[in-house]
Amino acid sequence: MTLTAEPRSWTQRHLLDVKGLHRDEIERLLDLAVVMRDARAARTNRSLLEADTVGLAFFEASTRTRVSFELAAKALGATVVDLQVGSSSVAKGESLIDTARTLERTGVTILVLRHPTSGAPEMVARGTGLRVVYGGDGTHAHPTQALADALTLREHLGGLDGRLVTIVGDVVHSRVARSNIHCLQALGARVRIAGPAAWIEGFETTTGLEIATGLAAGLRDADAVMALRAQLERGAILPPELASWRLDTERMGLARPGAPILHPGPTNEGVELTAELASGPRSLIGQQVSNGVPVRMAVLAWLAGSS
Amino acid sequence: MTLTAEPRSWTQRHLLDVKGLHRDEIERLLDLAVVMRDARAARTNRSLLEADTVGLAFFEASTRTRVSFELAAKALGATVVDLQVGSSSVAKGESLIDTARTLERTGVTILVLRHPTSGAPEMVARGTGLRVVYGGDGTHAHPTQALADALTLREHLGGLDGRLVTIVGDVVHSRVARSNIHCLQALGARVRIAGPAAWIEGFETTTGLEIATGLAAGLRDADAVMALRAQLERGAILPPELASWRLDTERMGLARPGAPILHPGPTNEGVELTAELASGPRSLIGQQVSNGVPVRMAVLAWLAGSS
Amino acid sequence: MTLTAEPRSWTQRHLLDVKGLHRDEIERLLDLAVVMRDARAARTNRSLLEADTVGLAFFEASTRTRVSFELAAKALGATVVDLQVGSSSVAKGESLIDTARTLERTGVTILVLRHPTSGAPEMVARGTGLRVVYGGDGTHAHPTQALADALTLREHLGGLDGRLVTIVGDVVHSRVARSNIHCLQALGARVRIAGPAAWIEGFETTTGLEIATGLAAGLRDADAVMALRAQLERGAILPPELASWRLDTERMGLARPGAPILHPGPTNEGVELTAELASGPRSLIGQQVSNGVPVRMAVLAWLAGSS
Repeated sequence: MTLTAEPRSWTQRHLLDVKGLHRDEIERLLDLAVVMRDARAARTNRSLLEADTVGLAFFEASTRTRVSFELAAKALGATVVDLQVGSSSVAKGESLIDTARTLERTGVTILVLRHPTSGAPEMVARGTGLRVVYGGDGTHAHPTQALADALTLREHLGGLDGRLVTIVGDVVHSRVARSNIHCLQALGARVRIAGPAAWIEGFETTTGLEIATGLAAGLRDADAVMALRAQLERGAILPPELASWRLDTERMGLARPGAPILHPGPTNEGVELTAELASGPRSLIGQQVSNGVPVRMAVLAWLAGSS
Repeated sequence: MTLTAEPRSWTQRHLLDVKGLHRDEIERLLDLAVVMRDARAARTNRSLLEADTVGLAFFEASTRTRVSFELAAKALGATVVDLQVGSSSVAKGESLIDTARTLERTGVTILVLRHPTSGAPEMVARGTGLRVVYGGDGTHAHPTQALADALTLREHLGGLDGRLVTIVGDVVHSRVARSNIHCLQALGARVRIAGPAAWIEGFETTTGLEIATGLAAGLRDADAVMALRAQLERGAILPPELASWRLDTERMGLARPGAPILHPGPTNEGVELTAELASGPRSLIGQQVSNGVPVRMAVLAWLAGSS
Repeated sequence: MTLTAEPRSWTQRHLLDVKGLHRDEIERLLDLAVVMRDARAARTNRSLLEADTVGLAFFEASTRTRVSFELAAKALGATVVDLQVGSSSVAKGESLIDTARTLERTGVTILVLRHPTSGAPEMVARGTGLRVVYGGDGTHAHPTQALADALTLREHLGGLDGRLVTIVGDVVHSRVARSNIHCLQALGARVRIAGPAAWIEGFETTTGLEIATGLAAGLRDADAVMALRAQLERGAILPPELASWRLDTERMGLARPGAPILHPGPTNEGVELTAELASGPRSLIGQQVSNGVPVRMAVLAWLAGSS
């Protein structure tokens, strides 16, 4: 198995957004993630990244994403170093490029970066020789989350071509949704958003995106449904009709028979979906998380291979 | 040497408290700790846990215990990931189970957990497939500290059967003391507590526990003495007669000849015991710390083996 | 190549300051750093420190130095454990020695320590069996920074004997400068300081040190120039004539032809030197950082070997 042969032929040096990826690249990343998942279980490929040093620079708090990247890097034998900057004074955009250059000079080759300043990852990608992976956050793109979700759906549905995925809830404050829209469309899926008016506005110009203003219209013919959390910390206001949008087992009957439910987490059970639905047989929420590590292994191997 | 053979036959999936352990299990854990201590010195068994990922989730500050667990896990080849939640917003009981489930899905197999919410470790143990080790804290049980103390005493005294261990000081605020009482009694020792009245109240119903209200009565015939720090941060009030309870070399003469002094640390030298006693030839305080790593290696191997 | 043969013959157990080092020792450390740089690139010597556990105890914030030490230790196969004490309550001098003794008992062999209390590293070196490396900070000596700078200059100039290095700027608040003065003089260099009067006072009694009160006099005949940042956080006051001291490409013409510019970082571009100069062909600033990791590898190997 020539794991590294494929990524080496790719030209991407960074993963800042899903938008920059062609369908072919995404498909191959997901294929590589499947290989990585098996490799991790079998504990093979544990020295694939032994020449690489992965720096974790999370300038905003993160548990899940940071842990997933750390485990992905270690599973492939990379040296991992954490900047521990979550609550530090280095969090100013001004010094970020200096910090990144310093890291490069200490031997860091791949930087996983979460930073509140818009354009920060691009700045580091341009201003250093580091390969940069964007760690995502609540207000920006979250490429590796979208890839994990796409892998989960691709495996469950057997492919995304022509499939209809409905995203329900606070779309407007969710860059996870934005990354998912791009990723799923790139893979051939139809994407529809549905939710209270204030939560789905501004997407009229997104090519190919379907918009539904009622739950029944939103779920009709859906092959899969993704619920989103109201991002109160980003200014979301809970609309009075919120309860009418809460997903439960009965309302899922409006979608295609057997359509699965997804959620990028963390969930507010009882608000956007019921606990029964979240932990029931239709739920793929656990798999979305599980797929996060092999997807990140694939991304790291992809970037390492492009040297 | 079939290191893993024994623990695999055990039925425990978690270590939440010493109370759940039978004498036989404790003895075998301590035997395993001795093997681990030698293995660490010889740098063998360094891949015993290579299939395991140990998550460190300390929701309350810790230096000693966290470092000991981290070194124990690394000495056996486990992948280690630290949640770095000491000062984070994840510290709410509500989201703990979600965080734990997420960790399980990223591949964590053993979770070392310190959490201020009563019952938190039990909740995680029930609600996930993780093996949970309770990291202890000032107000709960501290099983691995008690095991390290028991190993130290067993080796120094040549066995605990029928031996009398007196615990002196702020027992009421010390869950280290509670774990030690259970562990030492399970190993066949007699346990006596002694201290100012307010610091030893509420233990009248503990089966087999001896209670002494004066220092001379407390130390008489004691084969070993364990001093405790006044836990001011838990509401302990320094009683006026405190000085009469301070242990020093002369007062140790009230115990059996050569009886050693122990202390779970950190010590307040000059308060509950003198610096001369703490660092003198009778002191086992350093060995209690040294034994902490092999005891934790044994616990991790035990949990890993029970899969 | 008998990498460990040389350090084992050395008698130093700690690296607390450059002052304690003889020229011969510094030269051999720098030679060893060159070997380490090649070894790291070739990924050899990756188990040189496999018997060692390196503790990182940074009681003051650090990104660059901590990351450099962590990568140096990992490149040589040491187990690394971080105390994560930057913002913790352990930061009191009183408990430092207890913390250090605890670390020693858990198996830590080498402690990299940055602590605000004067004399703290010496106290730990005396009071424990740990080998102590001083991690430096803004107000104390910074031995490994000085060694990295010396390596950078030695390689660029082909040797330091009789070479003149001028340090320009806020010398009085800079222990980096103090460590550099000692290190460069020990290696046979002439050292001159230059800057506004308030920033170079108090050095009249330093043996062999030249002092210049004007920029032209400071740079005349200089083989290399090191710029320093105004340490406002240490009480430095920006003097009215500051602009007349700013180094730029034109003013560097006052030094010897081709004299390189160095800076211990982080730079305040536009204040003590221009961005053009900092990133231009005369700049060795990047190499100073790059040399930090192999120099620290050499120091760790040196200390490990002296057991």
